[in-house]
Amino acid sequence: MRQAGRSLPEYRKVREGVGMLESCLRPDLVTEITMQPVRRYGVDAAILFSDIVLPVKAAGVDLDIKAGVGPVVAEPVRSAADVARLPSLEPDQVAPVAEAIRGLVTELAGTPLIGFAGAPFTLASYLVEGGPSRDHARTKALMYGDEDTWHALAGRLADIAIAYLTVQVDAGVSAVQLFDSWAGSLSAVDYERYVLPHSRRVLESVSNVPRIHFGVDTAELLALMASAGADVVGVDWRVALDAAASRVGPGVALQGNLDPAAVFAPWDAVAERARDVLRRGKAAAGHIFNLGHGVLPDSDPDVLKRLVDFVHEETAGS
Amino acid sequence: MRQAGRSLPEYRKVREGVGMLESCLRPDLVTEITMQPVRRYGVDAAILFSDIVLPVKAAGVDLDIKAGVGPVVAEPVRSAADVARLPSLEPDQVAPVAEAIRGLVTELAGTPLIGFAGAPFTLASYLVEGGPSRDHARTKALMYGDEDTWHALAGRLADIAIAYLTVQVDAGVSAVQLFDSWAGSLSAVDYERYVLPHSRRVLESVSNVPRIHFGVDTAELLALMASAGADVVGVDWRVALDAAASRVGPGVALQGNLDPAAVFAPWDAVAERARDVLRRGKAAAGHIFNLGHGVLPDSDPDVLKRLVDFVHEETAGS
Repeated sequence: MRQAGRSLPEYRKVREGVGMLESCLRPDLVTEITMQPVRRYGVDAAILFSDIVLPVKAAGVDLDIKAGVGPVVAEPVRSAADVARLPSLEPDQVAPVAEAIRGLVTELAGTPLIGFAGAPFTLASYLVEGGPSRDHARTKALMYGDEDTWHALAGRLADIAIAYLTVQVDAGVSAVQLFDSWAGSLSAVDYERYVLPHSRRVLESVSNVPRIHFGVDTAELLALMASAGADVVGVDWRVALDAAASRVGPGVALQGNLDPAAVFAPWDAVAERARDVLRRGKAAAGHIFNLGHGVLPDSDPDVLKRLVDFVHEETAGS
Repeated sequence: MRQAGRSLPEYRKVREGVGMLESCLRPDLVTEITMQPVRRYGVDAAILFSDIVLPVKAAGVDLDIKAGVGPVVAEPVRSAADVARLPSLEPDQVAPVAEAIRGLVTELAGTPLIGFAGAPFTLASYLVEGGPSRDHARTKALMYGDEDTWHALAGRLADIAIAYLTVQVDAGVSAVQLFDSWAGSLSAVDYERYVLPHSRRVLESVSNVPRIHFGVDTAELLALMASAGADVVGVDWRVALDAAASRVGPGVALQGNLDPAAVFAPWDAVAERARDVLRRGKAAAGHIFNLGHGVLPDSDPDVLKRLVDFVHEETAGS
């Protein structure tokens, strides 16, 4: 469960007075925060505590994460010259992440650790808009109006994602997840033309581990996201897993997709819906039970714990 | 084009110092603001200036629209008792809207006027959450956990929408649009069970005029939204119109679906994309060219004017 930590009091405690990106570069905090949901919930895999803009920051781009806002970029990237100035990511710049991963692999004692990186389109949106955006209007204007600059930008960000994931795989993660949070704002035609080649290059660079490819609002994109080289495609709650299974085709597993809002309902309703997710997930080549998006901040940890236990009971022996 | 006014300087001028909901109940302002995009752009139809929460406010619910936030409800509606206290809408309470429509029909001199109302799910989300929400977590928790109260709430809001649309049709609008802004946050299974019956009741109540049914993120819901009794289904830019046409089935027209972000690109890219929309729209039983969502506030009115002219030129004689 992504962002499972932020609903936990023990998470808020260790983060007190420590900025988001600072915490992602402190091996002690990365280790502790990555372990917290594993300890609390007994989930079957850990997901590395990090942030999708971390490698861009580590490479030297002037950006910060402002509480209640999100990533804010000092100098937005909007021209060919801006793109040419973008730095590369050197492995040394994320050495604390590698150190944390090596420690975590030992501490997790066999529980898989999933690494992750932001996909080129989503990273590009932050850089072009200068911060979070609902419409991605400047990003799309660049994409539609200056295709060469767009591809140059997405290519540089793919390089950063590749470098970051390679560090993670070398340090011992068991799988990786490529997050394209905003890809769902694109039509399939645009995704295929402007985004897919770059995400494919990222996924192909780490083909030695299982690769999960995730976005939200991706009903129209599931087949393309699978074709980018994913072993597992994450599905939000809008598309039933049996329908999603037929879209991604044979041999591709699914991850998801209980509505994160569902855990606010009374337990019987949560259980009924979780059972439905498990049932529909059987149609896929493999199924990793998860929420359909990140854990909402006000989620009750006790309900999440009960949900994990419920899924374990329902799938015991299967 | 919905919300075409908000990018216009003449709109910002007449709204100076006047609250959103106040402006929706002043016939002089409703008339002026409804006419502005018609004068500026020469579009083929006018859309009534109003707000989806207006009839709820007019009925007596204590809510206001805060600038930069959206609708804020003083006492959120979360229990059967809260639902029982909801008022009905009496035609007199929206008499200024009827007065504006009567004047507009004369002033428009044959250009059709499209009325509109918010659909039960979207209105319910504002009332249950107490304001705008990205996750609709409390709304869904109510829906999933207390189905009777949910249906009672959605039924009351359907009654308000019916009363509001009936006033509009009686006053002379040529068509109506039912806005379900947030329906796309639901899976098809949930939409069909919790929302469709109420939206269908609203659309059936005004079957004497053409009915447009619109939401965003509705890739999975297009067939259901058509089956609710729509003559036209609005499509956002994520689904190509030729694909949408096969989902809504024969006899249902489409509205859309240029990405509102596309108008920020250089003109050649805008024209190329508009032409593609027109081409794909030919697959439908009918096509109303529009953006795939509301006009973004920073849109350049000159580009929008050029777009309207372009569509008229491309479709002249057809």
